[in-house]
Amino acid sequence: MDNAQPMNGAESLVKTLLANGVDTCFANPGTSEMHFVAALDRIPGMRCVLGLFEGVVTGAADGYARMAGKPAATLLHCGPGLANGLANLHNARRAQTPVVNLIGDQATYHRPLDAPLTADTEGWARPVSVWTRTATQAASVGADASAAVQAACAAPGGVASLILPSDVCWDAGGVVAAPLSALAVPRVSPDAVQQAARVLRSGQPTLIVLAGSALREAPLADAHRIAAATGARLISPMSNARVARGRGRLAVDRVPYSGDAARDKLAGIRNVILVGAPAPVTFFAYPGKSPRPYPEDAAVHVLARPEQDLAEALARLADAVGARQAQLPAAAIPAPVEPARGAVTSEAVARTLTALLPEQAIVVEESVSFGRAFYPGTVHAAPHDWLQLTGGAIGAGLPLALGAAVAAPGRRVVALQADGSAMYTLQSLWTMAREQLDVTVVLLANRKYAILLGELAGVGASPGKTALDMLDIGNPDLDWVKLASGMGVEGAQATDMERFADLFRMANARKGPFVIELVI
Amino acid sequence: MDNAQPMNGAESLVKTLLANGVDTCFANPGTSEMHFVAALDRIPGMRCVLGLFEGVVTGAADGYARMAGKPAATLLHCGPGLANGLANLHNARRAQTPVVNLIGDQATYHRPLDAPLTADTEGWARPVSVWTRTATQAASVGADASAAVQAACAAPGGVASLILPSDVCWDAGGVVAAPLSALAVPRVSPDAVQQAARVLRSGQPTLIVLAGSALREAPLADAHRIAAATGARLISPMSNARVARGRGRLAVDRVPYSGDAARDKLAGIRNVILVGAPAPVTFFAYPGKSPRPYPEDAAVHVLARPEQDLAEALARLADAVGARQAQLPAAAIPAPVEPARGAVTSEAVARTLTALLPEQAIVVEESVSFGRAFYPGTVHAAPHDWLQLTGGAIGAGLPLALGAAVAAPGRRVVALQADGSAMYTLQSLWTMAREQLDVTVVLLANRKYAILLGELAGVGASPGKTALDMLDIGNPDLDWVKLASGMGVEGAQATDMERFADLFRMANARKGPFVIELVI
Repeated sequence: MDNAQPMNGAESLVKTLLANGVDTCFANPGTSEMHFVAALDRIPGMRCVLGLFEGVVTGAADGYARMAGKPAATLLHCGPGLANGLANLHNARRAQTPVVNLIGDQATYHRPLDAPLTADTEGWARPVSVWTRTATQAASVGADASAAVQAACAAPGGVASLILPSDVCWDAGGVVAAPLSALAVPRVSPDAVQQAARVLRSGQPTLIVLAGSALREAPLADAHRIAAATGARLISPMSNARVARGRGRLAVDRVPYSGDAARDKLAGIRNVILVGAPAPVTFFAYPGKSPRPYPEDAAVHVLARPEQDLAEALARLADAVGARQAQLPAAAIPAPVEPARGAVTSEAVARTLTALLPEQAIVVEESVSFGRAFYPGTVHAAPHDWLQLTGGAIGAGLPLALGAAVAAPGRRVVALQADGSAMYTLQSLWTMAREQLDVTVVLLANRKYAILLGELAGVGASPGKTALDMLDIGNPDLDWVKLASGMGVEGAQATDMERFADLFRMANARKGPFVIELVI
Repeated sequence: MDNAQPMNGAESLVKTLLANGVDTCFANPGTSEMHFVAALDRIPGMRCVLGLFEGVVTGAADGYARMAGKPAATLLHCGPGLANGLANLHNARRAQTPVVNLIGDQATYHRPLDAPLTADTEGWARPVSVWTRTATQAASVGADASAAVQAACAAPGGVASLILPSDVCWDAGGVVAAPLSALAVPRVSPDAVQQAARVLRSGQPTLIVLAGSALREAPLADAHRIAAATGARLISPMSNARVARGRGRLAVDRVPYSGDAARDKLAGIRNVILVGAPAPVTFFAYPGKSPRPYPEDAAVHVLARPEQDLAEALARLADAVGARQAQLPAAAIPAPVEPARGAVTSEAVARTLTALLPEQAIVVEESVSFGRAFYPGTVHAAPHDWLQLTGGAIGAGLPLALGAAVAAPGRRVVALQADGSAMYTLQSLWTMAREQLDVTVVLLANRKYAILLGELAGVGASPGKTALDMLDIGNPDLDWVKLASGMGVEGAQATDMERFADLFRMANARKGPFVIELVI
């Protein structure tokens, strides 16, 4: 303890988080969190970012950690406040993002009285969490916090949910806990490496699926060497937490969202080697179609599970197949590209992004149906990080952009955001204005749930009037310039690519957020 | 089956719901629900109302059933879609509202493959549900639907969650199920009536707590007769699903939100008789204060549990204490009231509501801190129904208003809505515009989480800069006229009571929704 004052549980919690390097808290507090909020007044060092809805808070914590490489804390209010944040915690779980998920709750002795707001907080937290604990007394809440940080950061990373009864926070007797040492990342077995090497040497068409930390620079280079030496193909899942890409960087393709396209792409594959990835699976099942995008007779091998040391496994595999000295593919030298002109298409937007994306931008993509050309079409854009919706729970994009901007001041965040999905967490715009975050939101306004029209066809149904009404969000049209302005964010509309390029240049050059409503 | 075509599971589900009288569906569908959506095209009779966020959908289903007296269906997309709707399902659970909560999910054979959107749908549903089932085959999904309706409608009412794997919907072999007969409502035991009668005859100060269906006209009249004959006091919980009140109607007071105010009000009570209500408890615990608003030495007696026949129990109790012929309190004849003028206060708004509330209006109140004068101050307004946030999970008001308006065309809905809470489910405004619902939204804009400033004091903390920042939502100001306009709803701002009265008159006289941003 760094002072002689008696300390309550909340103060020990804040000090323990700071001692663990957790210095950012995305919060939507309520009554049961008032002592935590009061402790923040007394203890300097924690940056608090307010969200007006919990889905904003949890998604921002995800985006923050993807860029900061360390967890933020959330602060949520009771079971229902947690519930509002669950969808983006689900996405964080799929992204393997470390999050210290703090949930204030009824006092220990109040919970049995079943007051109106009492709910099954632990039960709701557990499915998205690698670690869930309800604190029981002020004296141990500091230790609980250090355990939560350790659990969140254990490879590959996850949500650690710590539930804080209000009396645990207000009672005296808090003790600041020292950080716990990081848990060791287990190495893969020699057998796993040898098995993968045998498969690669067999000469059969082989696919290596790279996920999570295997997509970082060094392991990705090893994977490319292995591919160059053995003829294996590299791929990443359709959704990834963070990929460093752009001009001069090694690229890796993704499994397409469409099962048909994926099966075409992976036809003839005889072996699949997994490096921190699950075996690829289509997002949904469709009548009469395989749920696997690779051939049914392909053999699946696990080089490394997500919680193992992926980089070390790839380095050993490169040695085992004699690929250490293999030549990396030369980075293509792209011709300079001019921004697109004329009509708004997915390819045109990708071209303008390639021409105008700021160096070291952070691209957050939740573009759903319209954005299919964005990823392949921006491979030669200026070097950038690409963050995606990972768990399919829409409404992640704007909060991810918010959190990434908090984590990486000085870098421009570009959010490529579908309109239907944006409506889930549009409150994010208010926090962007409040914190004056450098985010350019490209709001892709097609005024329908366009992806569902494709899905309706995919399950063999043709839409009638009721179905079309349910998939049309254009009656009335959403006006994103007004919605943004109502939350303090300036915006403007573009209906052609010339205007889009002008707005995109201008938005990226200014301080603070800007919304471009791109009518598509 | 009413035609010779083979029927898939989704079609049998829709037809079974219609056979059960469930003819309204609040929906936010995704891929796994496409066969249900396609079935709606082929089968007439189901009104589908689209929400752009699941919290809108579930809260609307709550508001609908409170007014319609029968459940609506929801349609949600997988575990994360359910998660987004949980907070308002929590409120529906506390309101004892029947809801047929339909959640589409991964195909039965796809779920084990753990595709990105796969989550613990059942685990999340169960804490808010009286009944949870995952359908397993097309042939029985009709029967599942009838069981869900029966469970939702069993007294006192609750959420029945039916999870629908996509293959169960698209497989052939669906069978329409007949409605199941309503479950009998158990009567209270003679002992319970005699015990309550003994307490009432003792002459000790006694409080009768009336909740749920005990607040309907006939049982409330019996309760007033019992009070007149025995000197007992009547009260209802601080939050109630629906209360019929206004000029000429019997009134019943509520337990105040503030524990101190509640303890003052209930000082001296020696017996508490519960009629469909839990024993009163403060919303939260506070250091050193009792969690009960009644004296600690009061004895608590249960006349009727929520699932029992409350009206019948009160009638028998009235007989047992000889109150059948007791005189009901005369309805006060209030002097006509003019709308308030000048500065905006809680009392002034109550006065204007008393003067101008349309006959048979439906008032939906989520006014949080500012609205403390609204309920006591509108006892002489034109006859109306008053719907409240029941579970403390903010963001219920706008969806409740939406659902109530769908259930009760021809009646004006007046939503008294705090700004911070409105932000949780502001997407409701879009559906109000789309469906042209007759809702007057009075948006109480204080631009702070005002209630939390009181709560901070209540837990003994004084706010510093960080705490004030966290409770201030006025940087930047939300502009509700722009936000509404961005979703197709007209609005205007009032900063004094004269302008408010003008706007309130105008809004109530027109068709469709209108937002009045009342700066407070």
